[in-house]
Amino acid sequence: MQKSDLLKKLQEIVGDEHVSASAAELYCYSCDASQIRGMPDFVIRPVSTEQISKIVSLANENEIPVTARGAGTGLAGGAVPVEGGIVLDMSSMNRILETDLDNLQVTIEPGIVQEKLNQALEPYGLFFPPDPGSSAMCTLGGLIANNGSGMRSVKYGTTRNYVLGLEVVLADGTVINTGSKASKSVAGYSLTDLFVGSEGTLGIITKATLRLRALPKERSVLLASFEDPELAGQAVVKVLSSGIVPSACEILDRNIIEAINTFDPKIGLPKAGAILMFEVDGTENTVREGIEMIKDACSTLATSIRAASDKKERDEIWAARRLVGAAVSRLDPLRTRVYVGEDIGVPIKELPGMLHKVREISEEFKLPIMTYGHIGDGNLHTGMCIDVLSDAEWEKLNKAADKIHRTAIGIGGTVTAEHGVGSARAAYLDLELGKALDVMILIKNALDPKGILNPGKMGV
Amino acid sequence: MQKSDLLKKLQEIVGDEHVSASAAELYCYSCDASQIRGMPDFVIRPVSTEQISKIVSLANENEIPVTARGAGTGLAGGAVPVEGGIVLDMSSMNRILETDLDNLQVTIEPGIVQEKLNQALEPYGLFFPPDPGSSAMCTLGGLIANNGSGMRSVKYGTTRNYVLGLEVVLADGTVINTGSKASKSVAGYSLTDLFVGSEGTLGIITKATLRLRALPKERSVLLASFEDPELAGQAVVKVLSSGIVPSACEILDRNIIEAINTFDPKIGLPKAGAILMFEVDGTENTVREGIEMIKDACSTLATSIRAASDKKERDEIWAARRLVGAAVSRLDPLRTRVYVGEDIGVPIKELPGMLHKVREISEEFKLPIMTYGHIGDGNLHTGMCIDVLSDAEWEKLNKAADKIHRTAIGIGGTVTAEHGVGSARAAYLDLELGKALDVMILIKNALDPKGILNPGKMGV
Repeated sequence: MQKSDLLKKLQEIVGDEHVSASAAELYCYSCDASQIRGMPDFVIRPVSTEQISKIVSLANENEIPVTARGAGTGLAGGAVPVEGGIVLDMSSMNRILETDLDNLQVTIEPGIVQEKLNQALEPYGLFFPPDPGSSAMCTLGGLIANNGSGMRSVKYGTTRNYVLGLEVVLADGTVINTGSKASKSVAGYSLTDLFVGSEGTLGIITKATLRLRALPKERSVLLASFEDPELAGQAVVKVLSSGIVPSACEILDRNIIEAINTFDPKIGLPKAGAILMFEVDGTENTVREGIEMIKDACSTLATSIRAASDKKERDEIWAARRLVGAAVSRLDPLRTRVYVGEDIGVPIKELPGMLHKVREISEEFKLPIMTYGHIGDGNLHTGMCIDVLSDAEWEKLNKAADKIHRTAIGIGGTVTAEHGVGSARAAYLDLELGKALDVMILIKNALDPKGILNPGKMGV
Repeated sequence: MQKSDLLKKLQEIVGDEHVSASAAELYCYSCDASQIRGMPDFVIRPVSTEQISKIVSLANENEIPVTARGAGTGLAGGAVPVEGGIVLDMSSMNRILETDLDNLQVTIEPGIVQEKLNQALEPYGLFFPPDPGSSAMCTLGGLIANNGSGMRSVKYGTTRNYVLGLEVVLADGTVINTGSKASKSVAGYSLTDLFVGSEGTLGIITKATLRLRALPKERSVLLASFEDPELAGQAVVKVLSSGIVPSACEILDRNIIEAINTFDPKIGLPKAGAILMFEVDGTENTVREGIEMIKDACSTLATSIRAASDKKERDEIWAARRLVGAAVSRLDPLRTRVYVGEDIGVPIKELPGMLHKVREISEEFKLPIMTYGHIGDGNLHTGMCIDVLSDAEWEKLNKAADKIHRTAIGIGGTVTAEHGVGSARAAYLDLELGKALDVMILIKNALDPKGILNPGKMGV
């Protein structure tokens, strides 16, 4: 079909104002927060499942790629149309369809922003726990498609744990419903779990029923300093095996501490080989008790321990954590933080060794690497900044990232704990998954035989 | 291939003593704890993944059904070879391969019994939380294949939440590994979640890495009586939305209370329209606080509330709960408890209405139905006893069960919350899942094109 005929058909489906093929607009949809780029042929802003079903069906008949996009905050190119075709901008489908307080559930459209959902739930004392760094911008559809998580997953788990059911448009336009409103069901394969984290390669998520939790009454934080990351790692194992489940358990390495203190000297993080930041939430008693237990567990390993005395101090400590991204990016005005090799996950006991290895890689390639992350989950973010105009720097960065990825896989870890595979990490799935990748491909081919759904992603 | 040639080949793979085609032995493998029956042609007790790979490969070449079996405690015929062929008795593969304390993980073979695993973990202060009623007998392989759960899933979730990775033999004999030892990974489709709950229809689970939890230091229980189940249901919603997460939340209806009191008058459960049994676990303070919060939440709805004053009373209350099965079975020596239509799950707010409907169905068919279950999960077990020698009674039971299933589906629920689909409930998946069943079939055909893996199950 001619491009102009296709445009006409798409306009018939969604209306002229909701589809665009203008270069300026297409350009806006050619990237996400990663370094991956790809120009779409059309951008469409659908408002209903029915429209999406018609669009996907048309695309399937004409073998045109379809890539769904939420807020474009992804760090792996997941929403970038690397093979062109149609981008479905889901941000217009952003309604809360049902807030079912008695069942502690909410049914939403995928375009709603995480923070907006939680603002709407707050008056009811409820919340949707997964909270990535991008929660002020990212959409639930993106979170679900990537199985996003963030700082509190050590206690609350990932997005997967909160998706009860989905409405999905398949590659041929068929609309299916997965899961159940019952909180437990074993009726059939867990298709919900298959679509969660499939990054739009198996279907377009058009609706989701989510499980909610009651907002904790209290929160408190504790900051523990260590001589080196290995001791911090030991403390994490001790805390987690003591039965207390912190609502956050973060690590900052020496480089990150220095970066934050340089960025804003008022913060005055203790100089240390590593800092652990723990948060405990729950009732007043639970929190007090949890903080004491963590203090005890860390006491023989830490050089200093400081519990926030009040809400103000607690907020200051988290503000420091939230500054990591900015502090890393602003270290050197000539260098840009590039999200490559930045999301490894390793078994918790391998963390100290992995941190050591990252330092070695940093020295080998003469590339400063700053490490922080959700240590309670074994998830390390390695921050690298380069002069993005220099090919030599890119080469260095890619080589260092490659070594980081291969090291993580070698010790039983993963190249991506929460940011997704997309195009950025697709080449590593063969190494990480082995023959399981063949099973992914079998499933992909069965559900999307023409390969129109987000092609060029996840190695399928 | 002739049956005798096949036997010879199977003997070559596992040794003469580990394969049998004797009628007496085959008969033992023709049933599970449900009413489903099916005679195998061979029973094999493999001891390694390699053997299983060879057996499945041979079966695939010759299009012979292969059904994996753990302890045969299933309630839906999942382990029954309804189309004959090979039964793989996995109980010889029962080793704990690695107890990884630092990572709070254990790697096991599928034949290990749930209780034995937890006994081995107890000295380390760790446990594997999912605890079905059959935990003293059921194997981990069965639990994983069925995504089993039980009484404590209201706090701890189902088996799915504890499976980090699997080793699986596919239909053609290929061995794959899914998941990661890292506690969070988004590298690829969640094949682990696809195999969990697939009841042996997509592959044979030969190894699993499980996430563990620290054993709670304390537990306490509380018993609240209500005039009717509707008020009990309201109390459950109030408790769960108050932020406290009980480690168990069970309901017994009037019939079950009477059955238990008749079975053992010493137990003396309060006469009531419904009783809720709550358990809270954690530290001493958490437990005390949780029990108080539950008391508060129930205070305006319950007719009486009794918290266990000590461990002895707590154990007595749980002993009463554990007696349900026996009490129901022994109500009438001429009648047998049949597990049909016994595992519905509904959204929590639909529970009171569903309980009312069950009572109506009981009256309509003049069939006593006793209801109990994991109300915190919306999971109701409806106990029906019939004279199994009477065709008329079977017909009545099947009609009542059919109505129970259709009612549950009609209010957004499921025909099986934890017991599995197997053959018993396969006919309902079309109604419950709609077009999602077609997706299951696509996946089944892609992974097992000859349909040799546990045929006749799950509607695929």
